[in-house]
Amino acid sequence: MAPLRIGIAGLGHVGCGLIELVERQDRLRIPGQIEITGVSARSQSRNRPVDTSKYRWFDDAATLAEDPDVDVFVELIGGSDGPAKFAVEEALKAGKPVITANKALIAKHGMALAKLAEEKQVDLLFEAAVAGGIPVVRVLRDSLAGVEIKRVSGILNGTCNFLTTTMLETGRSYDDVLAEAQKLGYAEADPTLDVSGMDAAHKAAILSAIAFSADLDFSKVKVSGVDTIELEDLRLADRLGLRIKLIAEGVLTDDGVVCRVEPMALPVSHPLARIDGSLNTVRIEGDPVGAVTLTGPGAGAGPTASAVMGDVAKMFRPAIRPAFGRAEHHMARPFTEGRGDEVSAFFLSMRLADKPGALAALSESLAAEGVSVDKILQDSADESGASPVAIVTHRCARSNMQAALARLQKFAIPVDPPRLIRIEAAS
Amino acid sequence: MAPLRIGIAGLGHVGCGLIELVERQDRLRIPGQIEITGVSARSQSRNRPVDTSKYRWFDDAATLAEDPDVDVFVELIGGSDGPAKFAVEEALKAGKPVITANKALIAKHGMALAKLAEEKQVDLLFEAAVAGGIPVVRVLRDSLAGVEIKRVSGILNGTCNFLTTTMLETGRSYDDVLAEAQKLGYAEADPTLDVSGMDAAHKAAILSAIAFSADLDFSKVKVSGVDTIELEDLRLADRLGLRIKLIAEGVLTDDGVVCRVEPMALPVSHPLARIDGSLNTVRIEGDPVGAVTLTGPGAGAGPTASAVMGDVAKMFRPAIRPAFGRAEHHMARPFTEGRGDEVSAFFLSMRLADKPGALAALSESLAAEGVSVDKILQDSADESGASPVAIVTHRCARSNMQAALARLQKFAIPVDPPRLIRIEAAS
Repeated sequence: MAPLRIGIAGLGHVGCGLIELVERQDRLRIPGQIEITGVSARSQSRNRPVDTSKYRWFDDAATLAEDPDVDVFVELIGGSDGPAKFAVEEALKAGKPVITANKALIAKHGMALAKLAEEKQVDLLFEAAVAGGIPVVRVLRDSLAGVEIKRVSGILNGTCNFLTTTMLETGRSYDDVLAEAQKLGYAEADPTLDVSGMDAAHKAAILSAIAFSADLDFSKVKVSGVDTIELEDLRLADRLGLRIKLIAEGVLTDDGVVCRVEPMALPVSHPLARIDGSLNTVRIEGDPVGAVTLTGPGAGAGPTASAVMGDVAKMFRPAIRPAFGRAEHHMARPFTEGRGDEVSAFFLSMRLADKPGALAALSESLAAEGVSVDKILQDSADESGASPVAIVTHRCARSNMQAALARLQKFAIPVDPPRLIRIEAAS
Repeated sequence: MAPLRIGIAGLGHVGCGLIELVERQDRLRIPGQIEITGVSARSQSRNRPVDTSKYRWFDDAATLAEDPDVDVFVELIGGSDGPAKFAVEEALKAGKPVITANKALIAKHGMALAKLAEEKQVDLLFEAAVAGGIPVVRVLRDSLAGVEIKRVSGILNGTCNFLTTTMLETGRSYDDVLAEAQKLGYAEADPTLDVSGMDAAHKAAILSAIAFSADLDFSKVKVSGVDTIELEDLRLADRLGLRIKLIAEGVLTDDGVVCRVEPMALPVSHPLARIDGSLNTVRIEGDPVGAVTLTGPGAGAGPTASAVMGDVAKMFRPAIRPAFGRAEHHMARPFTEGRGDEVSAFFLSMRLADKPGALAALSESLAAEGVSVDKILQDSADESGASPVAIVTHRCARSNMQAALARLQKFAIPVDPPRLIRIEAAS
């Protein structure tokens, strides 16, 4: 199979992240070889985290789009109009598939571009335009084609979610937390697009169009942001069992698709209420699936570039896609039982005979094998005279843990076989 | 485009759910027409929730698989060997694509079947085999092809999760809760496959093979279940800030892929610790995406049938897949601003002038418009002499809410414009 030649326009964080991924494509699961034909950006001389000098340089994105050596045009410039739109149109008109991460472009001109792509019988893919590393576009479009979707909702702007989460957690004002978010790089120098709800609205409009096969009309989307929310609102809501979050949604009604973005109050028991910080999450409700929720990084160079890479992978069109993604003879990595001696923190639960020295025997057995205790809890003995004891250890090898339990066995102290359970690292 | 003719073998809950979906396919987003050529099951006379008499009956699944009028064979019989395996092999040998929901079959014979499918250049799809309505197979296989996956983990058996969740919540024993789960239909009459961890292991093995392009060898998967967990373990863990759940995982190590299922203790702050009841969840960790988590119904006729339907939709192979899933001229449903008068519970936050009758004016204004109060919270007045007040209303029309606020305006009581925020229904 000939390599797939891509042209990349826009060399910001995502563009550079994509180049980095292409350069280590052998470690990914791409069904063929990808080559970068050329790159384009406003400034050739700017310092970038990857070396772009080895790729053909184009001053003009549209020229790159039309280059005969470009099979697929990747637009990472941004902006709903201007050079991004022009270059995408030129690529489609030249009969070339387009991949874009540009939510504003698709929200405003998606229908016209889709029409152009269909006329030219080429793909227009935009997984990276919605919720960064969360593969919701393809899930909605393809995987859930057998679901009658009633509503799509979610937290689609990490900056807004960071703001409301941090305000409530720290008791600091909107302005104060926004300034911190700008320092941390979670918010742009001009945060308007985020805090006004506009960025989330672009994404919600795109998801609504897919979910409901609706004629995307961004002018009908109602948008309000988090810029009107005060700390006091968050605190009062909290005391009433509610979390205020910026929620984007598309709902199917008898009149058509209502798409809007606004702060909403969620009962603390609601799954979206627990999505904190800069995460994104999308909840898809439909018949007969109930609800499916996808959560992950909604922005960032790596996650967004990996979404673009997923779209690039889709451009290879083998006659069939192998069942497990790779041809069966390439499924070479072995399954193994492992060494059985993983290092982990452990939870240990047992019942100890209620006699003098029981706890000492336990402590000594653990110490003798170098197992160090993080927490211990002993309850009163039950009617049978045995005391429930639970221990959380620091990280140690399972073999040490097992040796300690073997030592303990000799004291005839545990009443039943102890339960040894691995503790998952905090995430 | 000619209709796609499918043959359905196995008419249990999922098979009947699939027939029901095919019969209302016009309301779904399938890229073509589906016809059911024939059906097959052990008993023709059994009572079923759909009328199967209008479809050609086959006593034998393999005969259905080979029928010249069947374009795609859908296997919903179950069991890793026996008639399911035989019929799938016959279909593939006859050069027909196969869709199956059979996790045991794919976990045990997936590699051999994938090889056969490749030789015959036909698709073998099994989205429904893992985590029911959660589209994790295609997400892993296709969408995340640009991610170097390090670990796949999750809660892949709803029965086990229901058991551990309910034991802790209700303080009841394993046997007691298991009996309830069987009554509710969450657990089979013979629950061994679920509670032993074997069902979760089948799913984890399939996900591991895809994530790591690994040579699936189910004999290497280490499996333990929840049948050794006692209420006391759950309670002690809870008091130490841990939740015990049956976790299935596949991890990439230097020696190969370690795949196992065992009870693990999760810090309560861990995202998987909060997945309660019969939900399933899958967490995919990789570079450069970080972590993506998918949550939803892991079983049930509707969700599983919708996953099968998503695979059926994939069998249509238009030259290009339209950008939004449907041809642009079929994207007919309008976007609308909506009536603006939705019925909802509302959260209202304001600062009231600290003077006699303020709260009375508020209560009367709400009552006069038929808005009924669920909860109210008033704080002491601040230095400026204004008291923060928050109200949670029962469900009412937004117009009534706004009328009440207009009334209140006349009393000159709120110090700033009140913030009116919709409350999301509990899920």
